[in-house]
Amino acid sequence: MIREPDETHDVSLRCWVESANEPGGDFPIQNLPFGIFQAGSRGRVGIAIGDRILDVAAAHAAGMFRGDSALAADACGGATLNALMALGVPAWRALRLDASRLLRSTATADARQAVERALVPMADVAMLLPADVGDYTDYYASVHHATNVGSMFRPDNPLLPNYKYVPIGYHGRASSLVPSGAAVRRPHGQTKEEGSPPVFGPSRRLDYECEVGVFIGPGNALGDAIPLADVAPHLFGLCLVNDWSARDIQTWEYQPLGPFLAKNFATTVSPWIVTMEALVPYRLPAYQRPAEDPAPLPYLYDHADQESGGIGITLDVFLRTAHMRHANVAPHRVSRAHFADMYWTIGQMVTHHASNGCNLRSGDLVASGTVSGPEPDARGCLLELAWRGTQPVALAGGETRAFLHDGDEVILRGHCARDGFARIGFGDCAGTVLPAAT
Amino acid sequence: MIREPDETHDVSLRCWVESANEPGGDFPIQNLPFGIFQAGSRGRVGIAIGDRILDVAAAHAAGMFRGDSALAADACGGATLNALMALGVPAWRALRLDASRLLRSTATADARQAVERALVPMADVAMLLPADVGDYTDYYASVHHATNVGSMFRPDNPLLPNYKYVPIGYHGRASSLVPSGAAVRRPHGQTKEEGSPPVFGPSRRLDYECEVGVFIGPGNALGDAIPLADVAPHLFGLCLVNDWSARDIQTWEYQPLGPFLAKNFATTVSPWIVTMEALVPYRLPAYQRPAEDPAPLPYLYDHADQESGGIGITLDVFLRTAHMRHANVAPHRVSRAHFADMYWTIGQMVTHHASNGCNLRSGDLVASGTVSGPEPDARGCLLELAWRGTQPVALAGGETRAFLHDGDEVILRGHCARDGFARIGFGDCAGTVLPAAT
Repeated sequence: MIREPDETHDVSLRCWVESANEPGGDFPIQNLPFGIFQAGSRGRVGIAIGDRILDVAAAHAAGMFRGDSALAADACGGATLNALMALGVPAWRALRLDASRLLRSTATADARQAVERALVPMADVAMLLPADVGDYTDYYASVHHATNVGSMFRPDNPLLPNYKYVPIGYHGRASSLVPSGAAVRRPHGQTKEEGSPPVFGPSRRLDYECEVGVFIGPGNALGDAIPLADVAPHLFGLCLVNDWSARDIQTWEYQPLGPFLAKNFATTVSPWIVTMEALVPYRLPAYQRPAEDPAPLPYLYDHADQESGGIGITLDVFLRTAHMRHANVAPHRVSRAHFADMYWTIGQMVTHHASNGCNLRSGDLVASGTVSGPEPDARGCLLELAWRGTQPVALAGGETRAFLHDGDEVILRGHCARDGFARIGFGDCAGTVLPAAT
Repeated sequence: MIREPDETHDVSLRCWVESANEPGGDFPIQNLPFGIFQAGSRGRVGIAIGDRILDVAAAHAAGMFRGDSALAADACGGATLNALMALGVPAWRALRLDASRLLRSTATADARQAVERALVPMADVAMLLPADVGDYTDYYASVHHATNVGSMFRPDNPLLPNYKYVPIGYHGRASSLVPSGAAVRRPHGQTKEEGSPPVFGPSRRLDYECEVGVFIGPGNALGDAIPLADVAPHLFGLCLVNDWSARDIQTWEYQPLGPFLAKNFATTVSPWIVTMEALVPYRLPAYQRPAEDPAPLPYLYDHADQESGGIGITLDVFLRTAHMRHANVAPHRVSRAHFADMYWTIGQMVTHHASNGCNLRSGDLVASGTVSGPEPDARGCLLELAWRGTQPVALAGGETRAFLHDGDEVILRGHCARDGFARIGFGDCAGTVLPAAT
């Protein structure tokens, strides 16, 4: 069950960190996402607030957290969020509430002084991966994406018969997850043009995929399922994911066992995890299936999930080419999609994942697959936007793109907004394409 | 380059642990595989010798290792083999040589006395997973398996056009790797019979797959390839892998992104890693492709790999049903296959994996896929042996099997033998099927 908004979501809250009060920012006091920032040679747990990061362990050392909140802060002494993720809802909620109270304009001068010493300017530090990801799974939960891609590769059979019954997913590569900002080298691989033998060389059809990922909180034991009605306490929070894809490698390799080298050269993760707590006000009904679609099988159906399993996240993709950077042209938005258009909810994806007894562990990352909507400008990858290269995308500055060029930067952004509530955002999920190794 | 056998491979060596000298045993002094045994609540690094385990850290504490060997033993203080795997060939070789010398009949009485105190009876301890596996990859490297399975699912198109060019693989699940002996619960999942809507329930077509896995030693940096000529130092050793598979779930879910819940409920790993050092005498030429097959692309071709990239491992699969156990009927061998029949070498699989810059880490597990040979009794899974259920396998004791029943135990065994050299084995990779959860 999704609970009601509480005092931490109150739109009228003001923060004594002034940058957190600026309209349109990603990190107002109603957000409070967690991430890992680099301090010297190691990572530390932080909470984003405006243009600052609250160093949780430093604030804890100053005695700022009590009770359940202190237990949660105890789990923030390491270099990843895994220990905090393992704790569960009561600890997360307590820490969030204390952080919110400490950062409000109404905080005592003493508290403010102590917390101020634990603030780090965001501009001064690099962000690292938020968790040690044991397993990374990628779904395919947008029926619009699946239909578009399917119609390119199988015009007579775009959407396979299992799609509306099975949340289709596969295992991705954990080792090559990289934080936002890391450059991504164009991969080599085998590709094959019709009528020619396969060749090995740099991919010529490099693409991005705009996705949302969920980090698992407490896991399940091997052999135990997670019923859909009980899935919420297993979800820590969401990030943005760019599932970089080499389409030419993918086309040649993917049958019969799915994508492999077309994907596992790099996957970019946004560094701030927006907690499920912060997302409470933005819950929406699950995707409304057309009347002709089959109902989900009982293990994938739950009334509360139907009522509020969707999440109102607006997802924007920006491109900025090397030429645009040099000419000082701003990143160009090429698409805007809505996460609520996904055919399967996050709860359905996680429940399906564990339905055979597969064990999920704290810190595991489960991504949604490309988020595409029904509109042509709501397509979350270049393959769809430029329709397999046949309709190149026009960019501000005069260039066009069918697939990514070296030097292109891809920036994913996401935010939630709702009347009567704050706008909260995810921060950038960005990466620039490096030339293939020689 | 594969080196020549050395003094540790000398067939005339005798061990003062008498059980190591018994003919037909898996763990003579020429083997010396590494594993993790349970001592109290944690794991310790051991070397199998006859029916004993050498506790490496205990022997090290007694001052038994010097020089490079001591450096290697320093890396054996943890509860996994990852640190040892990260060290590389010189350290592995030094430790192996010292362990061999300490265990020979020619060892000094002092050394023998000290080492004896570090021996643990194998029967007294449980074995754990040998490594913390960051990523688990599964290949599909038997052309016989691929052709058999393909002809069941795609009679008109059994072997896909990419097969002889691309070593086909996919990412499996690291969290559900379990050590030999762990029971495996029959998974639930979605299945669909022709003409009926899909249903969710216990799998009715549970199968095993007999595979060989390689543990990665030193890894590669993200973005760097591993040329085939340089792959050997990245390989620590081999184990047996049972890639349990729910065929009915697999058939319905696998398109277009490959196997997922049909596989990730459990994968059993044999606990002893037979090192690449121990396997030196059993190297063979790579699979000899028929003249009509394409040559490997240049990045997958290396003269030394062609000469000695194969490994002469004989793989046996035994079944023992609950009825056979009660009636005291011995496990029944249902197949024998040869790892040298694989279409791709381990080197080609690992080189292909990193060819796009994907980073492999120490302790990663890369499995071969089902090892099947050309003969009907060399098929490494029940799907093939019983030809999709149409030709049930007859077992000693009078039962037959099309797929696995609850209570069935599957035991994989592997060994290497060559004239003039010792017979070395892998130990059992075993698991028993538990009924589905209720």
